[in-house]
Amino acid sequence: MSAPSNQTTGGLESTRIVLASRPVGAPTAANFRTDTAPLPAVADGQALVRIKYLSLDPYMRGRMSEAESYAEPVAVGDVMVGATVGEVLESRDPSLTEGDVVLSYSGWQTHDVVSASQVRKLDPDAVPASTALGVLGMPGFTAYSGLLRIGQPRAGETVVVAAASGPVGSAVGQIAKVKGARAVGIAGGPKKCAHLLDDLGFDAAIDHRAPDFADRLAEAVPDGIDVYFENVGGAVADAVFPLLNTYARVPVCGLIATYNATDKPEGPDRWPAFYGRVLIKSLTLRGFIQTEFAREMFPDFLRDMTTWVADGTVRYQEDFTDGLANAPEAFIGLLEGRNFGKLVVRVAE
Amino acid sequence: MSAPSNQTTGGLESTRIVLASRPVGAPTAANFRTDTAPLPAVADGQALVRIKYLSLDPYMRGRMSEAESYAEPVAVGDVMVGATVGEVLESRDPSLTEGDVVLSYSGWQTHDVVSASQVRKLDPDAVPASTALGVLGMPGFTAYSGLLRIGQPRAGETVVVAAASGPVGSAVGQIAKVKGARAVGIAGGPKKCAHLLDDLGFDAAIDHRAPDFADRLAEAVPDGIDVYFENVGGAVADAVFPLLNTYARVPVCGLIATYNATDKPEGPDRWPAFYGRVLIKSLTLRGFIQTEFAREMFPDFLRDMTTWVADGTVRYQEDFTDGLANAPEAFIGLLEGRNFGKLVVRVAE
Repeated sequence: MSAPSNQTTGGLESTRIVLASRPVGAPTAANFRTDTAPLPAVADGQALVRIKYLSLDPYMRGRMSEAESYAEPVAVGDVMVGATVGEVLESRDPSLTEGDVVLSYSGWQTHDVVSASQVRKLDPDAVPASTALGVLGMPGFTAYSGLLRIGQPRAGETVVVAAASGPVGSAVGQIAKVKGARAVGIAGGPKKCAHLLDDLGFDAAIDHRAPDFADRLAEAVPDGIDVYFENVGGAVADAVFPLLNTYARVPVCGLIATYNATDKPEGPDRWPAFYGRVLIKSLTLRGFIQTEFAREMFPDFLRDMTTWVADGTVRYQEDFTDGLANAPEAFIGLLEGRNFGKLVVRVAE
Repeated sequence: MSAPSNQTTGGLESTRIVLASRPVGAPTAANFRTDTAPLPAVADGQALVRIKYLSLDPYMRGRMSEAESYAEPVAVGDVMVGATVGEVLESRDPSLTEGDVVLSYSGWQTHDVVSASQVRKLDPDAVPASTALGVLGMPGFTAYSGLLRIGQPRAGETVVVAAASGPVGSAVGQIAKVKGARAVGIAGGPKKCAHLLDDLGFDAAIDHRAPDFADRLAEAVPDGIDVYFENVGGAVADAVFPLLNTYARVPVCGLIATYNATDKPEGPDRWPAFYGRVLIKSLTLRGFIQTEFAREMFPDFLRDMTTWVADGTVRYQEDFTDGLANAPEAFIGLLEGRNFGKLVVRVAE
């Protein structure tokens, strides 16, 4: 990766990782390609940004495919999408000045020309700027909005969340505790489970790799499950659904276990059994994307979560990867659960 | 069936249909048995009732099985449960007098001694008393509460309901029309479909037995589906789910297509695909039993629905079977869709 020149018009280029081909099953390095593209001149109302941090998130797997989803796919040859934190190098808008740190959606690249109206200025002296990609950003807001609006945990109820050491799951469990609920986390491996108990204050942590996972989960929820925050699907959902109480709520924000699926899943057909439980237990299943609640709830989220992070009520874990070139491998690992905490690529120092 | 004597203490008996054995798959006549049982003496606060009408409803299939459901199963040897309309023969409670017509839950039998506090007095001069088992009873309230509380149809939206000529489905479609929505009904055969269009004012009617059912349904909902009132499941749900719009609501009140299932359904496993649509379309699936909403909504329901029935806004169809002895065969036919409208057994003239 050659360092881009420091001009704002003319020869300045962005080094980018683009979608080279659509994955069949799990993505591989061959699905990505690094290239460079010239940056447009900075127009009125815009700013040139050097990206410092790139967020890697499971939803990006969906954007790599043409299958119908809640957002348009990335076109082959286009830069991979993603939230980023960057530093303003040049501004032609009165709201931004050189040196400002901003949140933008610049994707997997080193530089971008952004509209000032579409970025959010951050205060890196208050909290580390990278948190705008995790606990104080989209993942944290996904947890906050989905849990409070759909899950509606009450004091004494039991909340279960999978991928519990990830940025969404860890916030779900800790916000559940704030609301007086019992938080049970599911994670992969003893290290992540210990983190849930020792660092994040979960009431129980279950390793989904354990051969007796379903039995252990049942033991951990003696009063059943009132809220299951669904971000995984697959075998974890299999174990959870029989334990859901009458009137349980299931906010569905992700199904990472199925994102790499290719063939039609083999039988038996589990749909009638799952759907039957929706009926006999008066369950609520509600899919959502956090953007639905942003206008109404984001200011409350920022206020609450900033307070909780500042006073230690909510803790967070970040997992940094150095260098944009390593983003594909880190992303492939994310889909396999190899990250430990919010996965962030340090694109520049 | 011998006519019971007219004494209120001593030798008076009720002729009853009891559960003889639990069905495996579809119920047969052998799962039922007729017997007689002595009636207790009428105590203070009670009344002796002669049953005139017995309601037959799909939920009764669930009560015949030991599989977990939202209510306890009927014990083998016990009288089959069910809502009934009867005439008071003797009362030892000031709220009831001989000749009163009451709604009770006396089950499949000719006579019952009931607590006055657990019956609802009907006015057979205002509307036919049998409607308390259908459009003005549990099925009508299931439609009203599930559609308005969970489905929340807005003017211009599209509401789809299956078993649309039945007592729940027909009320769902007609209430949807009251709310300004487009009503699309699914029913079995041309006679039922014609009834939906000609008598009930549905905007479209689709025969689920047609070989190109899924295509016809898609044509009938050019703007997609905003509310799918689920009382069937199975192949109808298969056709509906791909047509659901973002933020569509699915009140789930019954899954009659699966009630007689025995084996684990063959693959492919449809669950990941259905669950995936919950996610990408931000769907709401909500199981419910009408009792959940009774305290809060039943008075409004009685007021609204009585008005709508009286002024012809909501029409209803009843399908009478004569004689308690014919209840098992009628019930078996109900599960096969052989009834046409609300199925009621005339137990006595």
